[in-house]
Order: sequence, then structure tokens, then C-alpha cells
Amino acid sequence: MRIAVDAFGGDHAPLEIVKGAVDAANQMSDVEVILVGCEHIINEILATQAVPEGRVTVQHAETVIETGDVPVEAIRTKKDSSLMVALSLVKNGEADAVVSAGNTGAYLAGAFRTLGRIKGVKRPALTTILPTVGEPGLILDIGANADCRPEHLVQFAQMGSVYASHVLHIEKPRVALLNIGVEEAKGNALTKETYQQLKNEPIHFVGNIEPREILSGKVDVVICDGFTGNVVIKLIEGTASSLFSMMKKVFYKNIGTKLAAAVLKPGIKTVKAKMDYSEYGGAPLLGIDGVVFKAHGSSDAVTIKNCIGAARAYVAAGINDKIKSLIEASQPTEEKEEQE
Amino acid sequence: MRIAVDAFGGDHAPLEIVKGAVDAANQMSDVEVILVGCEHIINEILATQAVPEGRVTVQHAETVIETGDVPVEAIRTKKDSSLMVALSLVKNGEADAVVSAGNTGAYLAGAFRTLGRIKGVKRPALTTILPTVGEPGLILDIGANADCRPEHLVQFAQMGSVYASHVLHIEKPRVALLNIGVEEAKGNALTKETYQQLKNEPIHFVGNIEPREILSGKVDVVICDGFTGNVVIKLIEGTASSLFSMMKKVFYKNIGTKLAAAVLKPGIKTVKAKMDYSEYGGAPLLGIDGVVFKAHGSSDAVTIKNCIGAARAYVAAGINDKIKSLIEASQPTEEKEEQE
Repeated sequence: MRIAVDAFGGDHAPLEIVKGAVDAANQMSDVEVILVGCEHIINEILATQAVPEGRVTVQHAETVIETGDVPVEAIRTKKDSSLMVALSLVKNGEADAVVSAGNTGAYLAGAFRTLGRIKGVKRPALTTILPTVGEPGLILDIGANADCRPEHLVQFAQMGSVYASHVLHIEKPRVALLNIGVEEAKGNALTKETYQQLKNEPIHFVGNIEPREILSGKVDVVICDGFTGNVVIKLIEGTASSLFSMMKKVFYKNIGTKLAAAVLKPGIKTVKAKMDYSEYGGAPLLGIDGVVFKAHGSSDAVTIKNCIGAARAYVAAGINDKIKSLIEASQPTEEKEEQE
Repeated sequence: MRIAVDAFGGDHAPLEIVKGAVDAANQMSDVEVILVGCEHIINEILATQAVPEGRVTVQHAETVIETGDVPVEAIRTKKDSSLMVALSLVKNGEADAVVSAGNTGAYLAGAFRTLGRIKGVKRPALTTILPTVGEPGLILDIGANADCRPEHLVQFAQMGSVYASHVLHIEKPRVALLNIGVEEAKGNALTKETYQQLKNEPIHFVGNIEPREILSGKVDVVICDGFTGNVVIKLIEGTASSLFSMMKKVFYKNIGTKLAAAVLKPGIKTVKAKMDYSEYGGAPLLGIDGVVFKAHGSSDAVTIKNCIGAARAYVAAGINDKIKSLIEASQPTEEKEEQE
């Protein structure tokens, strides 16, 4: 299986990306990695690594899309960037999947432009893993679609359910609608109508979930519009970070608290890691006609390796075909031709 | 100044409510408290307290609106409830303000029905104090209006600005729009249009704020629709609670960590208290033609006392008149008669 990796996307590119890709190739014997980006820089890093024979290759790309670049403009003017070249490898059948930790907006726009949507999918969605108290869950959309209609949310639920079942290996994923009350009649116009439509879908819809419960591990897939989902992941991050900074003041208060904090440090580090979704590798752009994984911008080698592993599982399970089947089965006949 | 207090609203009613009201009367010599609810139960509690002569009276009410009651139904069928009777005291000019820790939905619906809106206000809003790293900020709407139009958010900004300036004593409150990006063009249809309208208002609009920044203390008033606002406050609560429960496991791991945790306990308790918005007393239903304060459902005597103090400051500053003036000044002439 050939996985294209954007070696120049992310805060710690290219060193950590290249290291993670090499680690993945070493640990997964069926994986071939194609590192995309400035050839001589990648080769310099590879020279310091133990590279498995024949399973790590380099595809040169002249430029880089930076974090601050405007997505739509960047994908138009930087066709020779590592991100766009990596996507084109999938388009041309030279890679089975692509992994990048780069500019999310450009990645989404580039994937949409280069690979298009799975037949029947109205809106591709961004997903991420939720750091719950129990097993990790999935949330989507987290920002690809700021304004959604109920039929979009229904498709997010279908795609999320397939992913959770075949990649996270949850037998019957519990899918819930993020809402401001558990009762059926609660919410805004969007969630009220979506609730009614989700009831009739062949997925395990368990009703509404309130925001205070999404980290409890009670559901596997949380569905929401991209505005709300983006608020959710950024607020979890912000709340955790505010809390840890308040705690730090407590820990550094005096010599006694400093000593006590030292004892607890390893445990607290584990909690911090659990709250940091970059730990979970990456998540797919669901609905794109190709396997496209986004790793967190701050990804290190371990994250990239995990992300490559997730992309590999996704390809092996044939998720996109499963999404296509589920969406075809669910669409009313008269809608089948609609491609907005 | 006469403040009606719903003695039977909230998880710790009536004991904590009555105690808090008596404390307020003891500490604020210009405050008269009217405790509303079952007369003999209230009198029994008062008999155990040091009550200031003539400044605590009782207004009997036969029933109670429970937390689980359906708001619209409850305010129709329980006109003799402590909540509705307390509101009627304001309506009849027998009280200058009302405080309750009871059913939020019923309180809002009851206040709307009994007292109506301030002239020109399209939608009253629920507010609460945000537990920031720095000085407390304000967020609205947090749930009164699940679906909003830009002109509603503009009025929330006006009302929040007046409140922050005259009750929280912030000279020039920094008002920000909650959004999924700081740039002007970011967001959904609602936030994009709201941004344009807010630019022209005579308030100190500082632009968009991302969810990860709202606890940083960088702005004083955060504006959003009621769906998003409700998600925000419930998610902050949920994230903090998940984090503390993960931390607890770290603390109880072994004898060493238990001893260390004991040293840090007082400090951690302070952080917990800071994250708990019930600590901040209460917040007004802004836009109602009367002074209506909501205390958190889990309020104890201290919270109720603080909430009475906030209501007193609100009355003293004549906030509702100020809101009325600001809204009148801002409305385009042709809209002045519109009352949807």
C-alpha cells in the first residue's frame, strides 16, 4: 500500500514528518511511503535514519503552502507545493492515500478540487477524535461547512458511523446529535429537523447529546454543523489550557507545593496528553473521493506514524466504497441526481 | 430598595435561599427583601436567623415550579407559584427587582409574559459570567434564542455593553463576536453579517474572538446566538469536570500521590471554584422590562446574597433606561415601530 506524505506540512516539518514516515515504514511491512517536498532536504534527513529498503521514496515538490496562506488562493497559485503534489499522486493512482499536517483549509479545498466528492455526498466533512474520559469518540463536522442543512448532517452521521465501525472497530457505533437539550423538541431549527431525519436512517442513532456529556464517552460519533463543531474543539482546547495554567500557579506557589507537584507530574502529563487530540494521529476528510488524512498541525513523529497507520486501516477496510453504498441506499430516488 | 426573592427556586431551596436573603439584608442596609413562597416554612427558617428589623417580609405563594416542569405549561398552570408571584410583585410595583434560582425556561417565559420587553428590544437574552483567567467576562445569549438573526445579536451587544459598563464597572467594555476565526470574512452567514452591523454601532466592538480565547480575559462581553452560547457554557462545565475527574485518578493512584494531592488541595479547590460560574452570583435577563436576575440552580446562601447584590447595583444604575436609550438611538427610523 502506497501512502503519500506531505513532508513540508505542519509546525514540525520536515524533520518530524520524515521521521514519523520512516517509523511507519519500519513498523508496517505492507506500507510504502512517498515523501513529498524538497528532494535534497528530505534526502538529507533520510541519510540520518534507518530506512527500510525500497519502501521510502521521494517525490520532489518545489514550494510549500504555509499555515497563513489563504486556502483558495494557495491551491491555485501553488500547484507545485508539497500538499498539492501529494494530492495529485492519489489522483493519478500513484498513491492509495495521502497524509498531511499542513494548512487545513488548503488541504480541504485542494482535496475537493483535485479528487472531488464520493458520488452522492453533498458536503465533505472534517472530523477529529474527541478526548473522552473513556474510549475516544469521533466528532464531525469540525469546520468544513459553517452553514449546514439537515441533509448534510444526516450524511455526516452516515459517514461517521461507517468510519467508527470499520476503523475505530466499534461494532455498532452510537451516533448522537449535538444539541442544547436531550429532548427531541429541543434545539434550533437545524437540529430539530435533523433529529427527525436521523430517526429514519439505518444507523444506530441514540438521540441528542448535550455538550457537557460529549467527553463522557457515552457516544461514539457526535454530529453537528461545522460552525458548532469548530467552536467545540477550540473550546475544549481553550478550557483545558486555561485550567492547566490556573493549576500551574497552584503548583508553583511555594516549596511545599512544588515538591508535591513533582510527585504528581507524570500523572498530570498523562491527563494533558489525553486532552491533546494531536495524540490520536489524525482523522480523514470524509466524503472526498480518495483517502485523505489530516494530522494535527503540531504533529510530531509519533502522530504522523499513527496517522499513516489510520490511513492504512481506512484503505484496507475500503471505507469510501462503504460510504458510497450507504449513501446510495439512503437517498430518495428523486434526489439521486442532485449534485449541488 | 425592595427585592423579591423566589424562596422555592433552586436545588438548595428554601433553606439556602432564605439564609442568603437574610445575609443580604444584614449586609446591605438599603435593601428590603420580600421572600416569596410557602409562608409557614419560610417563617420557620427565619425564626432560626438573625433577621434585621422590618427589612425581611414574606409573601405567601401556594405552589412551586419544579426544575422538570415544561416552562410554557408551568407558567400557565402555576400562576400561584413562588416564581410567578415574585414576578408579579415587580409588575405591580411592589418590588424593584426579582431574584430566582429556579427553572430557567419558566423564569424567562414568565418574565416575558408578565413584564414584557423593554421598548425596542426584539429578543431578551440570557447572560452569564464567564470564568476567565483574568477578570470575569459576560457572555450572551446563552440559551433564550436558539435561532437568531444579525439584528438580534447587535442588540445583545448593546445590552451586554451597558451591563458590563454599569454593573461590572468596566469603563469601555470590549465587545467581541464569538466566531471560528478572527478575520472579518470568517464564520457562518449569521456571524459574517453580524460583524458588518456591529462595526457601525456606538459600542467598543473589538472584532471576532475564537472559542479558545474566551477564557483568556481578553474581552469583556462575548456575543453569540443562544444555541452556540448554550453549547459554550455547557462545554466549559463538561470539559472542566472531565479534567478534574481524570486528575482525581492521578491523585488517588498511591499513597505518595495522595499525600502530594493533600498539599495541593486548597489551591485546586480555588481553581475549581473559579471555573464554577455559580460562584459569581447571577446574571440578568437582559431586555425584559423589569429587573430580573437568575441565580444558578445550585446556588447556596453566598450565591443568593451576591445575586441580590448584583440586582441592587442594576436597579441603582438604572440599566434598563440606559438600554432603552441606546437601542432607540441605534434603530433606523423605519424600524422603530417594528415589534415582532
